[in-house]
Amino acid sequence: MAIKKIGNQTLVFANPPKVISAYSIVGPKEGQGPLKDWFDEILNDDMFQEKTFEKAESKMLRNAIIAALKNCNKTPEDIDFMLGGDLLNQLMSTSYTAREMNIPFFGLYGACSTMTESISLASIIIDGGFADHVIASTSSHFSTAERQFRFPLEHGNQRPPTAQWTVTGTGAVVLASVGNGPMVTHITVGKVVDFGITDANNMGAAMAPAAVDTIYLHLKDTGRSPDFYDMILTGDLGEVGKEIVIDLLSEKGFDVSNVYNDCGVMIFDSEKQDVHSGGSGCGCSASVFCGHIYKRMLKKEIKNVLLISTGALLSTISTQQGESIPGIAHAVAFSIA
Amino acid sequence: MAIKKIGNQTLVFANPPKVISAYSIVGPKEGQGPLKDWFDEILNDDMFQEKTFEKAESKMLRNAIIAALKNCNKTPEDIDFMLGGDLLNQLMSTSYTAREMNIPFFGLYGACSTMTESISLASIIIDGGFADHVIASTSSHFSTAERQFRFPLEHGNQRPPTAQWTVTGTGAVVLASVGNGPMVTHITVGKVVDFGITDANNMGAAMAPAAVDTIYLHLKDTGRSPDFYDMILTGDLGEVGKEIVIDLLSEKGFDVSNVYNDCGVMIFDSEKQDVHSGGSGCGCSASVFCGHIYKRMLKKEIKNVLLISTGALLSTISTQQGESIPGIAHAVAFSIA
Repeated sequence: MAIKKIGNQTLVFANPPKVISAYSIVGPKEGQGPLKDWFDEILNDDMFQEKTFEKAESKMLRNAIIAALKNCNKTPEDIDFMLGGDLLNQLMSTSYTAREMNIPFFGLYGACSTMTESISLASIIIDGGFADHVIASTSSHFSTAERQFRFPLEHGNQRPPTAQWTVTGTGAVVLASVGNGPMVTHITVGKVVDFGITDANNMGAAMAPAAVDTIYLHLKDTGRSPDFYDMILTGDLGEVGKEIVIDLLSEKGFDVSNVYNDCGVMIFDSEKQDVHSGGSGCGCSASVFCGHIYKRMLKKEIKNVLLISTGALLSTISTQQGESIPGIAHAVAFSIA
Repeated sequence: MAIKKIGNQTLVFANPPKVISAYSIVGPKEGQGPLKDWFDEILNDDMFQEKTFEKAESKMLRNAIIAALKNCNKTPEDIDFMLGGDLLNQLMSTSYTAREMNIPFFGLYGACSTMTESISLASIIIDGGFADHVIASTSSHFSTAERQFRFPLEHGNQRPPTAQWTVTGTGAVVLASVGNGPMVTHITVGKVVDFGITDANNMGAAMAPAAVDTIYLHLKDTGRSPDFYDMILTGDLGEVGKEIVIDLLSEKGFDVSNVYNDCGVMIFDSEKQDVHSGGSGCGCSASVFCGHIYKRMLKKEIKNVLLISTGALLSTISTQQGESIPGIAHAVAFSIA
């Protein structure tokens, strides 16, 4: 049987799933950044009336999913599957959200690549004929990630210039076999790539080679030039990783500089907001896609977008054991007619 | 478009993916249990010549995948996707294994439900026409899980009778669109179910309601009676959870007592091996399926098996914050002609 794959690792959808709804919620700091007018909801307080940051993150995710469903007049009963994950150990935010939703659930972990991992698998499920409606979602929260991966918040540690700021944000999309909205036409599923970076304060550099590998293969597999896309957008490489992507792709013969940006660079004003190299976290590409890109696609301001969420697959234990940081990046090609 | 779903949440495969290869590796304690003659490989030392337990777990997983590939004369280049996860924060064992394999990778987290979650998504990908060969795998290790979820190993804490013993073990299967071996005919994807259990030393009771929900829906969706199956097998509920499953399914009108067992009960001799309620961990259902069930199916001793790996979606943080333990269970129906 001929499988629906072109080139090396890109899948093509015969009946492209449509993003029929998307919703984004971000924290106060993200709500003061350059994209502030695009997000669906901005929290005044990143505790979101909860007792812990973890419960706040979970509430943010739950509310985004409920709002995304409402926007397309669906209820949880209409949804065949929910796919998603977050940065917290054992996917705490997503697991507790899935408990409330009562929808058959696949938990995913791709670090900050989770948004495009979720959309990729959701699209396979729909185009394969196994579902009409699937939710794909993810979240991150500065305070939950910081205290899990780095230091207690009370510690107030100094951050080097290469460090990034975990976005407090969430994005949820409803993908459907039939409907209106940006279509998922292709996905390029990433391999784990590790160039030996061991500095957990330089995740952009650790993830950039994975992004380059996936973007390069996507362009090669599809035969598209970078200019086919109105935007090629990585998830959360920040300023440092963004430069590496442009340089490495240029070495491989692709000049992406006209169309390429990074969600982590776009979401904050790095100088005014003291975020050093930019934003990071699963919620970064999720909220920028759902808040900004999706709406610009609906307005037909941009018609073809390649989104590449980028993940750093490190843990505190792997860092303590001297391991380098493996990266992964999954690309999703969206088009609107 | 009519989707390939029957009843409420069961998918049917038109071209059932085949398990063309499976490989299991277990630790020394599992290698002294009742299934010792079935496993493909038994370690003499659970450090596996590595410097840390985490690296040993990752090596066990990597070796199982390499051996599973060898058994069916495949190389990593023949494999379209690798799916899997483990219990460690940020899927440390699986991420580092994926780095070595160089295969497009989807990381999953379903706690101990990961084996059937991986097989389910792999089957969707193959039956949907997106791949010819997919690896599904998972692992767990007593010492990595114990020190991550419970106490430092040096602490030597006492364990209540409901506690389970995390299996040091791994299982990897190669699923293919064409070939010989047990076929994946149906999957029933679980919802998150939470009956309010807060005792992390009683995971069997926390996960049992999710298993009951999935088994009940599977039987209802397919119209099959429990006796259609030669074995209905949960992942790691242990003695305590096993009794709950029999009781709750009986209340719902299904008597599974003739065909039902639990991998966590089967893998250890709970009295002689001092494991209290039985085995647990992702590697439990993975190694019992790959080591024991798969081989018995190849010999046609058993022809129809329903495997329901069961996961407890707790984290140390959620426990500290007083949350109850959500459970999830995914069922995979295997048949061999």
